[in-house]
Amino acid sequence: MSQLLRLRPATTPEMLALFDDAATIAHALAFEAVLARAQSREGLISDDVAETIAAACETLSIDPGELADEAALAGTLAIPLVRRLRAALPTNIADKAHLGATSQDVADTALMLQVKHATILVLADSDRITRALALLATAHVTTPAIGRTLLQDALPVSFGLRIAQWTAGIDDAATRLASEVSANARIQFGGAAGTRAGLNGKGSLVAAHMADSLALAKAAPWHARRVGVAAIAAALGILIGTLGKMARDVSLLAQNAVGELREPAIPGRGGSSAMAHKRNPTGCQVALAAAVRAPGLVATILGGLPAEEERGLGGWQAEGPVLAELFLLAAGSASALATVAEGLEVDAAGIARNLAAAGIGEDIGESAAIVTALLEQHRTKN
Amino acid sequence: MSQLLRLRPATTPEMLALFDDAATIAHALAFEAVLARAQSREGLISDDVAETIAAACETLSIDPGELADEAALAGTLAIPLVRRLRAALPTNIADKAHLGATSQDVADTALMLQVKHATILVLADSDRITRALALLATAHVTTPAIGRTLLQDALPVSFGLRIAQWTAGIDDAATRLASEVSANARIQFGGAAGTRAGLNGKGSLVAAHMADSLALAKAAPWHARRVGVAAIAAALGILIGTLGKMARDVSLLAQNAVGELREPAIPGRGGSSAMAHKRNPTGCQVALAAAVRAPGLVATILGGLPAEEERGLGGWQAEGPVLAELFLLAAGSASALATVAEGLEVDAAGIARNLAAAGIGEDIGESAAIVTALLEQHRTKN
Amino acid sequence: MSQLLRLRPATTPEMLALFDDAATIAHALAFEAVLARAQSREGLISDDVAETIAAACETLSIDPGELADEAALAGTLAIPLVRRLRAALPTNIADKAHLGATSQDVADTALMLQVKHATILVLADSDRITRALALLATAHVTTPAIGRTLLQDALPVSFGLRIAQWTAGIDDAATRLASEVSANARIQFGGAAGTRAGLNGKGSLVAAHMADSLALAKAAPWHARRVGVAAIAAALGILIGTLGKMARDVSLLAQNAVGELREPAIPGRGGSSAMAHKRNPTGCQVALAAAVRAPGLVATILGGLPAEEERGLGGWQAEGPVLAELFLLAAGSASALATVAEGLEVDAAGIARNLAAAGIGEDIGESAAIVTALLEQHRTKN
Amino acid sequence: MSQLLRLRPATTPEMLALFDDAATIAHALAFEAVLARAQSREGLISDDVAETIAAACETLSIDPGELADEAALAGTLAIPLVRRLRAALPTNIADKAHLGATSQDVADTALMLQVKHATILVLADSDRITRALALLATAHVTTPAIGRTLLQDALPVSFGLRIAQWTAGIDDAATRLASEVSANARIQFGGAAGTRAGLNGKGSLVAAHMADSLALAKAAPWHARRVGVAAIAAALGILIGTLGKMARDVSLLAQNAVGELREPAIPGRGGSSAMAHKRNPTGCQVALAAAVRAPGLVATILGGLPAEEERGLGGWQAEGPVLAELFLLAAGSASALATVAEGLEVDAAGIARNLAAAGIGEDIGESAAIVTALLEQHRTKN
Repeated sequence: MSQLLRLRPATTPEMLALFDDAATIAHALAFEAVLARAQSREGLISDDVAETIAAACETLSIDPGELADEAALAGTLAIPLVRRLRAALPTNIADKAHLGATSQDVADTALMLQVKHATILVLADSDRITRALALLATAHVTTPAIGRTLLQDALPVSFGLRIAQWTAGIDDAATRLASEVSANARIQFGGAAGTRAGLNGKGSLVAAHMADSLALAKAAPWHARRVGVAAIAAALGILIGTLGKMARDVSLLAQNAVGELREPAIPGRGGSSAMAHKRNPTGCQVALAAAVRAPGLVATILGGLPAEEERGLGGWQAEGPVLAELFLLAAGSASALATVAEGLEVDAAGIARNLAAAGIGEDIGESAAIVTALLEQHRTKN
Repeated sequence: MSQLLRLRPATTPEMLALFDDAATIAHALAFEAVLARAQSREGLISDDVAETIAAACETLSIDPGELADEAALAGTLAIPLVRRLRAALPTNIADKAHLGATSQDVADTALMLQVKHATILVLADSDRITRALALLATAHVTTPAIGRTLLQDALPVSFGLRIAQWTAGIDDAATRLASEVSANARIQFGGAAGTRAGLNGKGSLVAAHMADSLALAKAAPWHARRVGVAAIAAALGILIGTLGKMARDVSLLAQNAVGELREPAIPGRGGSSAMAHKRNPTGCQVALAAAVRAPGLVATILGGLPAEEERGLGGWQAEGPVLAELFLLAAGSASALATVAEGLEVDAAGIARNLAAAGIGEDIGESAAIVTALLEQHRTKN
Repeated sequence: MSQLLRLRPATTPEMLALFDDAATIAHALAFEAVLARAQSREGLISDDVAETIAAACETLSIDPGELADEAALAGTLAIPLVRRLRAALPTNIADKAHLGATSQDVADTALMLQVKHATILVLADSDRITRALALLATAHVTTPAIGRTLLQDALPVSFGLRIAQWTAGIDDAATRLASEVSANARIQFGGAAGTRAGLNGKGSLVAAHMADSLALAKAAPWHARRVGVAAIAAALGILIGTLGKMARDVSLLAQNAVGELREPAIPGRGGSSAMAHKRNPTGCQVALAAAVRAPGLVATILGGLPAEEERGLGGWQAEGPVLAELFLLAAGSASALATVAEGLEVDAAGIARNLAAAGIGEDIGESAAIVTALLEQHRTKN
Repeated sequence: MSQLLRLRPATTPEMLALFDDAATIAHALAFEAVLARAQSREGLISDDVAETIAAACETLSIDPGELADEAALAGTLAIPLVRRLRAALPTNIADKAHLGATSQDVADTALMLQVKHATILVLADSDRITRALALLATAHVTTPAIGRTLLQDALPVSFGLRIAQWTAGIDDAATRLASEVSANARIQFGGAAGTRAGLNGKGSLVAAHMADSLALAKAAPWHARRVGVAAIAAALGILIGTLGKMARDVSLLAQNAVGELREPAIPGRGGSSAMAHKRNPTGCQVALAAAVRAPGLVATILGGLPAEEERGLGGWQAEGPVLAELFLLAAGSASALATVAEGLEVDAAGIARNLAAAGIGEDIGESAAIVTALLEQHRTKN
């Protein structure tokens, strides 16, 4: 029941792997293992019990299809997963697993682990893009080109200024994403009603140890306080939009009648099943499609903020797949544009021809100084 | 790289199968087979050639993972698929396959075939819901209950009126979906620029034969005229919203302090990993999560309407996965609520207790007559 | 506290007037007058009383600012309005006004009256567009032009085919809007809990008379069954999107380097505060901005479908201003593009030059036959 | 043509005033005055000329209705406004006004001034809310109450924990808004193509002076780099969502059958036109309606990020009214909930009754410690 043909065009295999069944199960079991060890550290269970549970988490083999069916019925992944884990433990230990935790603790923590890893992938490709663009902007810092506003020829700009604008937008958005993920990829450990009951007052210490072990931020339970998830989603949506900006311009500048640049030629890429002569802007297509899809997904996450009472119904259950989708799209877009940025073919003759046709001189004003200002954030980071 | 744990909770295995790799490849090959036969019927290729192509389409085995990777690179499914098809044909026939067609012809037609099949599934479950609800509405046509507005006790209603309102909403939405799909699940056959060039003026006849063979509506090429897709998406979004209305009410009426009804008890369903005593409204959860997710997806499709020129960049490529997602959510919601509707436990004592507590009598006005009016559309259909 | 500079650029004065304070108050009072007369017809109140109420409705003068402040406090328009109406009546008649009605009856009926009038405006301008485009499509039915896909030169099309595609999309969307409004612009009359209580069983007859008087469709109460509103909103969103498609293409074809057509020159329109030589595609700007804004508004309406119980909290209160906004945007877009369509300047030399530059001949395939097919719906309507 | 009845229920008169015609015109003229003075400081025009322009800006009287009509025709506010300004100046000075600036410089700077002022209003009301809630959370830090998950009774929580969760969410969102506005409410001064041409290399100094005078952040031109606007919009959407969370809970807890708290009783507020006995949660209604509307508006802004080339067509023109709408909604929500928070009526007996009915004891776990952690950010700020 693979959905590759539906999902793959928009994303990368690496990002699909981060959100696939194996990764989700591994993160959920990591939660249970880390929970047991943190509880033993606070004396809630013995070291032996903790190690037995952790060992079971590492060796347990779970059939994803069966688990998915049971999770769909149960309404949550944790119930069938914990049942399997307990069945794999000696009877006298079974009920020590998942102690004090609730389904959403597992689901949210697993999601945040995926968020952390996914962000690394996205930022790496964003970095490739901005490095390549910064070089290009610098190379063309004084190349005069016709600037266009409202899709009409306006006044000259430097070609590098145009590219530096893309760069600064992507850098700004990538910085925001890094910062929101750093602050909001947090441990979730609150128990059934978010009170950390039944842990002898050691709940917050247990949560802190778990956060350390999983390299997540410490946090009070946030079952129905989804502001951090919303902030991460919004940052992703903004990044996808700034990538879309670059793609919009590249595709416009690559129009045959404009001809100022084009995507790199790559075997197997951008052809047409009907027209052998075409070179389609396929990287831009991926990035633009992502930019069309992201806003509705961000809106969905925002729409779930008014969650009901201690743990909501409908809103938060919608979050996981939607946040994953945003990361899939961000990865697809950033990866496609990294290839584009690193191989972008600038047509100096085309640029000069269009500028001459506009017939309004070559005064690029303070373009060079503005390029310097726009690339400053980039230089500071690198 | 299965994504079951991400996709499955929100949908049914049957709907996932309609949009999986095997189905997509089968539909794409069906397009090529039907195209060849329609062309032979109009004398564009010989019967032998057509049958050779059709036979190849039926026997060709394609690895979905490889195809997905190549499609992601090419920017379209059709290029690697047609390459495989041609490679499976005798050299002198190879270029007769996919004659006069373009990638988007394949993609759109395959999508419309999926739309047709998916609609049947969704409508079947909607029907189960409205049948069950209509019975319940009739049974409680004069049962007085406290009506609530703005989440406050208001005046009495009949309990059946409440249920008849859900029924009428779902029926209206299901009727609209059926009608939009019937009108807009159309053949796509226009060739590279939507002119049906290179077919000796027989293009529209070929398209008509193809539509007949695939049981799709006939149509002029609609590569960049996406109004039909938008209408189907909107109808789905509306249906998911009316299902969400039922789920909202069931979940509110099932609150412990209200206790007027509850979801049926089903082994393995609606439990809690931390609290054995709970019966969670898991069917409502699925339907409400779908209702949270659908609006953003419909917006995405609407946002792609202003497609560029003869075939757009970014917008239409976003449509396929998003329309599929809407069907997945509709199926999940309708299926979950069909189970709920058929097993809904009405608590007459709870209803009476809440009404008495409100202390404003039992005058249900013209509830019974309104129930009759609301169920009329349902009766006409069934 | 006028908001003209914020609202006006996107819409027309005529549409603003349909949703302004005077219109809203007039519709609300018309509801009360028609209610009284319908009740006298069914013997619930005397003719004299009804005429006294109706007369008061016609002469009552209300300060919109004061009413707005009180409505904001009360959470509904009807409370302060009915208070004023009753104060204007003789004491023994006062409580006969608004008999059996609830705030939402007034609000929804007033909104539906605005929907009806607003739809007439929008359809009139859509009609202007499609008439002008159909003429242009016919005039250029065999003019060869280069077709473009994914923003790259592809194969020839006829210039008329491109325009006929816009026409058919807009016609389809306008037809859907007309049909949804005709079915769903309905009387709302249900009373506090939607049961038509307190009317001696005459409620549905009263509602039917009211519908006749106001030229609205008859309907069972639909306080929390918002499927009709959602269908109207979706139809508007689709229309705005098809108008955006035309605007997208006009703006792309008007690029200086492309030069196949341009918006008509109109004094005061499309200039630049910094560049006297520019002719900006200002009509397209209005239509494209509308197409950017509409999807989120449609999503908002869809998101409100799962209303709580007999009358919801938050969702339906969000509907009125959002539906109004959709009509404002539709009017702005249709009006701007009517002017564009009627004065579109086609540059035959530019078209020929671009086609020649592509160097792939002039075979426009079955363009002419497809134009005929695409304009058929238009011809049938006109 | 007032739209008060449409706009007012959702917002405050103060916020409407910040975005009304007078404010917009005043900000636009302030831009021109500050521009002239900054240019004189850099020797681009004489002091006398600058003062003459600034004086004209202060005394110029403009009819908003006429300006709006002309702006709608021109496609931008600046053209008719600058025409009026120049007409008010001596002929030899007229062309020194608006020197080196473009329409979007005026529009964006005016919008950012409105953003700054509007943010102050919103944060003041958010602060009122969190102060009131923090007191309430502290007062109820150990009051046991039944916690509810998925709308079902779960385990006990402290009533203060529930309120502290709202507080922390709103505080987090308000902090983010303050930070994004501080960073992104920036001067826009780039001239026609964003190069600051025609200013003798003094453009960036002029821009810096303008930023200082208007108390905006300094910035390179950002005509088509809208990441800052998107970040502000997202922060607003998140804040509105966290306010919606509080409203959701208050409205659920105020249900008659639950009865744990209710909105304060205010004369003229929350009544019903049909039922005198009701106290509707009108503050929650405003906040929930805002939370329904905000996500689509944020999505609209995100959707405009891929702007075309040096200044886009459609996307950025959509931004202004949408960002204003977000502030209107945020103000309405925050103001309504400030009143609610400051007068919230907690029903201790109701809380105790519901807890007892659940029959699962009173163990609130580490609620108190979690309250302390959740209020820490609040305490640090205040």
